[in-house]
Amino acid sequence: MKRADQIKSLFGQRVKQLRLQAGMSQEAFADKCGLDRTYISGIERGVRNPTLEVINTIANGLNVKLDVLFQF
Amino acid sequence: MKRADQIKSLFGQRVKQLRLQAGMSQEAFADKCGLDRTYISGIERGVRNPTLEVINTIANGLNVKLDVLFQF
Repeated sequence: MKRADQIKSLFGQRVKQLRLQAGMSQEAFADKCGLDRTYISGIERGVRNPTLEVINTIANGLNVKLDVLFQF
Repeated sequence: MKRADQIKSLFGQRVKQLRLQAGMSQEAFADKCGLDRTYISGIERGVRNPTLEVINTIANGLNVKLDVLFQF
């Protein structure tokens, strides 16, 4: 069970980890997702609260299944 | 990889499945989550696009880890 004040940071760290494993810059990843680089940056820093649809877009951009994205 | 137009429905079906497995009514589940019953209903019907923080609240209300919630 994740605390509400932790979840955005934990999710952001996981996105960054998987992005770096895939060898993508924030800019390349943002382009692949069709999102703005500053938005990706905000997610990775845990200051954004992305919706289900955006989370799905991110999983697709990372080529991982949603449950893998949430393994943290 | 889930299509953008499917993800809300797939997520909603999974929430409903886990809620029923836990033997909770929508109302009892909504109370447990601190969310409105009509909002839970909208999520289960795939018409809502919940944020990461709400998704975390739902996982906590179902007593499942986030990756389990996304196994569909």
